[in-house]
Parts: sequence; structure tokens; C-alpha cells
Amino acid sequence: MGIFYVITGTRKYLDLQLFKGGYVNRVPDRPIIESLLDIDFYKLTMLQMIFHLHKNVPVNFSFLNRTKAVRLGDVIDHGQLREELEHCQTLRFRYEEIEYLREIKRSDNSPMFSSDFLLFLEDFRLPDFYLGIPNEGQLNLHFGGAWSRSTLWETLSMSIVNELYNRHLTSDFSRVFLDAVEGQGRINLARKVFAIQLQEQVTFSDFGTRRRFSREWQDYVVGVLTEEFPRNQFLGTSNVFLAKKYGVKPIGTNAHELPMAYTGIYFKEDEKDPTYSQKQVPVDWENEYGLDLSIFLPDTFGTDWFLRKVVTERQLLGWKGSRQDSADPLSYAEKWIKKYESFEIDPMNKLIVFADGLVCEKIVEISHKLEGRIGCSFGWGTDLTNDMGFDPISIVTKVTHANGYPVAKLSDNIEKATGPIEAVERMKSLVGYTNTFSEACKV
Amino acid sequence: MGIFYVITGTRKYLDLQLFKGGYVNRVPDRPIIESLLDIDFYKLTMLQMIFHLHKNVPVNFSFLNRTKAVRLGDVIDHGQLREELEHCQTLRFRYEEIEYLREIKRSDNSPMFSSDFLLFLEDFRLPDFYLGIPNEGQLNLHFGGAWSRSTLWETLSMSIVNELYNRHLTSDFSRVFLDAVEGQGRINLARKVFAIQLQEQVTFSDFGTRRRFSREWQDYVVGVLTEEFPRNQFLGTSNVFLAKKYGVKPIGTNAHELPMAYTGIYFKEDEKDPTYSQKQVPVDWENEYGLDLSIFLPDTFGTDWFLRKVVTERQLLGWKGSRQDSADPLSYAEKWIKKYESFEIDPMNKLIVFADGLVCEKIVEISHKLEGRIGCSFGWGTDLTNDMGFDPISIVTKVTHANGYPVAKLSDNIEKATGPIEAVERMKSLVGYTNTFSEACKV
Repeated sequence: MGIFYVITGTRKYLDLQLFKGGYVNRVPDRPIIESLLDIDFYKLTMLQMIFHLHKNVPVNFSFLNRTKAVRLGDVIDHGQLREELEHCQTLRFRYEEIEYLREIKRSDNSPMFSSDFLLFLEDFRLPDFYLGIPNEGQLNLHFGGAWSRSTLWETLSMSIVNELYNRHLTSDFSRVFLDAVEGQGRINLARKVFAIQLQEQVTFSDFGTRRRFSREWQDYVVGVLTEEFPRNQFLGTSNVFLAKKYGVKPIGTNAHELPMAYTGIYFKEDEKDPTYSQKQVPVDWENEYGLDLSIFLPDTFGTDWFLRKVVTERQLLGWKGSRQDSADPLSYAEKWIKKYESFEIDPMNKLIVFADGLVCEKIVEISHKLEGRIGCSFGWGTDLTNDMGFDPISIVTKVTHANGYPVAKLSDNIEKATGPIEAVERMKSLVGYTNTFSEACKV
Repeated sequence: MGIFYVITGTRKYLDLQLFKGGYVNRVPDRPIIESLLDIDFYKLTMLQMIFHLHKNVPVNFSFLNRTKAVRLGDVIDHGQLREELEHCQTLRFRYEEIEYLREIKRSDNSPMFSSDFLLFLEDFRLPDFYLGIPNEGQLNLHFGGAWSRSTLWETLSMSIVNELYNRHLTSDFSRVFLDAVEGQGRINLARKVFAIQLQEQVTFSDFGTRRRFSREWQDYVVGVLTEEFPRNQFLGTSNVFLAKKYGVKPIGTNAHELPMAYTGIYFKEDEKDPTYSQKQVPVDWENEYGLDLSIFLPDTFGTDWFLRKVVTERQLLGWKGSRQDSADPLSYAEKWIKKYESFEIDPMNKLIVFADGLVCEKIVEISHKLEGRIGCSFGWGTDLTNDMGFDPISIVTKVTHANGYPVAKLSDNIEKATGPIEAVERMKSLVGYTNTFSEACKV
């Protein structure tokens, strides 16, 4: 009994496996998703542009578990999963939710969301999902339909699967052991709050909706952060429901979904260079939002290629910054500093939003190493909202087809590539992908 | 930030000192004591005998903090302490509480408490306390009056002081750090539950009322134990209120208070040998309860002296066992095994209740070492109800005078001796105290 904690690196976890064999199952009897605002803000900002430009383009999404060792298809009850997904389909944006969105302003004080878009949301309902028999122990879960409808399944499906998986992990825990899990979560959170309170240079947002331990837990975490930090350090949460509940800023811009789908929308059989479709993404985005949400997401087909071929000088000058989502964050920063400096732009006037598998220590390290060199902010996800002592799983719900064509993303870490293999290979060849960085995804 | 936990031996604690400087003070607005049953059961069993034999003997109690480094007089607000104590004086035994006591039976199914005693309880109120200005930073808190009234202050005063001290420790913690403290408590409790579930030979009771972290926390702990253990392993709690609430057995027999006070009651100026007064304690006890609560507490003036001079062969044969409360538990057990065997009594038919600063690992060790040699049970106190990551303080409320004379206890660990110095020295000389075991009291 001496070794009660499992020590992983510098972190100490309860060995929760010791606790198997309790009596009580604390599965709540409320649905996991009870509001269509319980999604990432970027889903809505993207959706508005999709609604204005591509609302009827057919786009398919598939759920993917990169943690193959965890056979989600075996451990998640299909009946429960179906029930949760079907419940989402019954949800509508409520009146006060639409009104909340109507009040969100741009920097020029005009509304972020247009009236036609809000009218569209009033009638919004989620399209059907396809839940097939598991494939090699993994969930066989897909979403199709018009892009302006299928897109909202992304974070909803991830939040649901993650919470069902976490319930499975504790399904035979009795009360005191469930309480110990929550206790470990509280201690880990307190540790982080304390660590970041000592780092005034760190500004961060909660990006943990999709991989949260549970809805209740993310709610607690965001509540604590609003209490512990000033608003110029804890900037807000990507979760629109919680941003509304706690009166903090909803945070988010856009995702790989846009550049990926655009390769399908502007598909040419004899394509030699997909630059056109990729240049169109920031152009359309700026047309929709001006420079308010001007954060590049450059790694869809490799950041090197994006910097060389896609981004323009005018955009480099005007856009606020970029989001880092794969490979080494410090090398990524160096690339951007070099690029900005080659155009005589002061990187200190530009921002990088780091958002790739951050843990507290990494945030502190990056913020110190880049202090005085380029603006930094942090989108803190899994480590913030799913650190209860269990190993999280690495799941995504990604576009697989758009406009009838298979689409892919490559990313700066080839382990994060998603999409049908033919699309991955096609894009690698088209962009001359030579990146060799490869690291298994933990979250 | 690497070292976040302070590692004490094999146990890992949150370094709670790191967390100073929060915003919220979570001091509850309910009194600490809300029922006169929120005491140890032995107070009532002793009180009945006191009521029948010595109800008007004047007996004084004093609060004592053995952890001198903690200046309780400085850190506990006197106004708050006074308010809590005065609130206790407003309490009366409620009708359903008296009825609960009326239903407690002896082994022959007759009532444990007689009607005259229950009538006395119906009118019971706590006598005055004396709270003076602190002395060398320590609380100056005393209780006097007829023994049958002053006695109930013992555990009440300890529960109150302990909870006020623990509130002081967290007085400037904000919510997330208070939650982390509770989280650490939950994890430590879960760890113990799991450890003892693997040790079916261990039977134990909660003895943690007087040194609990808080009333709410002891309530949680006892609730968990009733869920996690069968009634023949978790035998019950010393806390009468919680025994009633959770439907488990109230556990307790008698305390040093009896042999100590008896030295005052049977005081002789020219005493050469206090054996008479000490022999009278088990005689009076057996007259009151027969053999139902026949647990010796032999260490008041040294277990060696008790075994040599006080206990009779008839008592050794008839009484169920003894309680160990000081010095080394295994040496104590050897003394009793030897004593029983010298009278050809099988020690396996006798019991030792270990109740001196137990921690989980010690319980497991003792139970293994004595398996097959003598019956064992464990009265688990501070480590069970006050293990939240803070160092507990070692406090007692002890008899100082009885019948107008100063009285003392020596115990098998001279560090646990209490009472006016003249009484300690007198008793040492009278019993020929030669014990040299000395170990600072942690709890």
C-alpha cells in the first residue's frame, strides 16, 4: 500500500485503477447537452460565413479516436450515445440565446451576427447522424448534410463521447471514490490557478469544451477562473453557454474545417496547386468580419507552405496573428517572427494563440521564452478541463468530404493528419509536403 | 513550481501554505455545535455513573494545547469562541434525542440508560465556562461546577476549538483552494477506505469527534464509512449524533476522567498508596453496567502499576479487555498477553482497543502483528476525521481538580501527562512511576 500515487513526470496522480469495484453508479439523469450554445464560439463565427457563402454545400464529418488502445466502440453504450445525439436534435436556440448572440459586438460596435443569420439560427436543427456498428472496436459515427447544418455536430459529438467515456471509467466507483476523482481534479485545478497567478504575463482562454471531463466540471472550472483572474488575464471561454452564464467573453475565430472544405468546394480534377482555394479562406473571412477575428490557422497543409504561398503582405500587415495547433510551438513562433521581420513588421504587435495540447508548465515556459519577442496567448484545453487523474483520449470530429470530394488536413505534425487517405496523399503531393515532424497526439 | 506537493514520509500533501492570499472566507453561519448529542458516547455512559454516585462533586476541567508552537490564543477570535460556547449553553437534549437514548439497550436487552438519568438529561444545561486573556499565547479556558454538569464540556470544547482553528488556517483561501483542501481530504479518505477494505481482519470505530476538521467533514466521513464497510468491520462511531443519524452503533465506555477524579474524591493528605481509589473505578463501573462496557483504561498512572496493583483476577477473567492510549501499542499488547497468560486466560478471548494517534498504516501493522495473539479493535481518531493536508494540533480538555484537590494523569508516555504539577509529582511518587517512554504528542 506504500505506493498509492502513480508519479508521472513531475505530476502526481491518484492511481485510479486501484479504485475499481465500488457500488454506486453516479450517471446523471440529465442529458449531456442541454443547450445549442454549449459549443465552441468558432462554430458560430464560421457558421455565419458558411451561411452567407456556402450554406448548401454538402459536407460530411466523421468522429475519430486517435487513441486506438481505447476501444470506444466497446466501452460506450450505443443506446446511450444514440439517446444523447437524438436529444441534441430536439434542441433549438432559445429566445434568450438568440438575444445574447444579437448583443455580441464587433470592435466598431456593430453586431457580430447579422439579422438574417440569427433568423436562420431560430429555425436551426441538427441534421441526422449515422451511428453504425463499431469498426475494429472504434465508434462508427458520421454526420452529413448541408454544411450550414452538419457543422454544429463537431464539438457536440466530441463533448458527448468524451463524457460517456469518462462515465465509463468511473462506472463502478462508489461515492467516496468518485469524490476522490473530483478531489484530484480540484487539486490539479488549484495547482494551475496558483501557478498562473504567479505569471502575470500569461493571458489565456478556456478551450476545453470538446474534451472536458464533463459538462458540470467545465462549468466549475470556468466559474473558478472568473473568480481567480482579472479579465485581462483570463480572457474568456470558447464555450458560448458558459461565456453567457459567467459574463465573460466568448473566444474563437475559425478552424481547419474552412481550409479543408474549401479544397472540396474549389476542387479541380487536374489541380496542380491548391493555393487558390487556400487564399480564398482568409479573403472570405476578412470580408465577413473585417479584421476583428483575423487569426490565421496556417497548418492545415503545413505552415511552411502557408507562409510561402498563401499569406499576402497586406494580410501579414493587417491580421492580428495566428493560431498554433501542431508540432513544436517555439519553432512555429520563430517562423512567424522571421516572416514578420522580413516584412519589417514588429512581431510584438502580432499575436500567436497557442492551442496545441498545452499543459500548465508548457504555457509558463512558452510565455517566458517568447517574452519581448512576439505577443502570446494560450487556448488551454484538455489539461484545463479534463485533468482528474485519468489519461484523456485524443478524439476529433473532422470534415471528410465537401462538395462531394474527399478532403484532408495534413498539419505540421503528420500524426495529426486526418481525412481519407487518397485526400491526404493528394494534398501532400500538391503542396510538396516535406515536413517530418511526427509526435503521437495525447489529447 | 516543480515541487507542488510536500512529501511527508510516504504521504503526499498539497503544500497548503502556497495557497495563502485568496479572496473568499467560507466561514459558515451555523453554530459548530447544534446538538448536545454531538459528543462522544463515553461522556454519557460516564455521566450516568457520575449522576448516580458523585453528581455534586465539584470538578474542574481545563483546555490544553500541547502543540505550543501554535499560539491558539492569538489565532482564535475570542468573540467567536465565546459565541460558540455560549450557544452550547442554550442547547437542551431534544425529545427525540432522549427517546433515542432510551432505546439503547444492554446485552440483556434492558435499557442502557435509566429513567432517572434520562429525566436528569431532560433538564440538563451546560454550566458556565471561564475564558480569560490568553496565557503565553495559549487559550485560557476552564470549566467548573458539579461533575454531572461540567463533564460534558470536554469534547464540545475540543470540537469547537479545533474547528475554529481549522477555519483560521483557511480563512483567506478562495473557493478553488478551499475545494482543493476538501479534495485532499477526499483523496486521503478514499485511500484509507481502499486500504482497509483489503484488511478484513481490521475492525474499527470512528473516534474523531474531538479533533475533527469540522462537523460537516466528520459527518461526510461517517456517511462514507457506513456505505463502504459492513457493520462487523466499521463497528460504529463515538459521536452519538452521527450514530443516530446513520443508524450505526454509538461506541465508547469510559475515560481517564474517572480514575483522575477518583483521586480527588478519595483524597487523603497522608496517602501512601492510591490503590483504593483506583480499584474503586472498575468496581463502580461494573456495578453500573455489569460487563457490557468492561474495557479497562489502565494507563492513567501507568499500565505497569495498574496491572500489578489495581486489577483483580476476577476482573481479568470477566472484563472484555482494555483500551491502549499511550506509549508503544505492541509493547502494551505484550504486557496484557503476559498478564492474561499468567492467569491461564486465553488472550484471544480478550480485546485491546487501540486508540492512540492511529494512522492507517499503523492500524494495518498492529492488526497483522497481533493476529492470532489477542483480539484487536481500533478507535481511529484524528487521522480519520482531520487529514486534509494540515498538521493537526494536539489538544485536550482534562480534569484538573476534583473535590477541591488537584488531580493528574501520568499515562505511559510522560509527554501525555496532564494536571497541576504538584498533582503529577504526587502521583508519580505514590505509584513509584519509573516509566521513561516519552514521545511528543502529534494528535
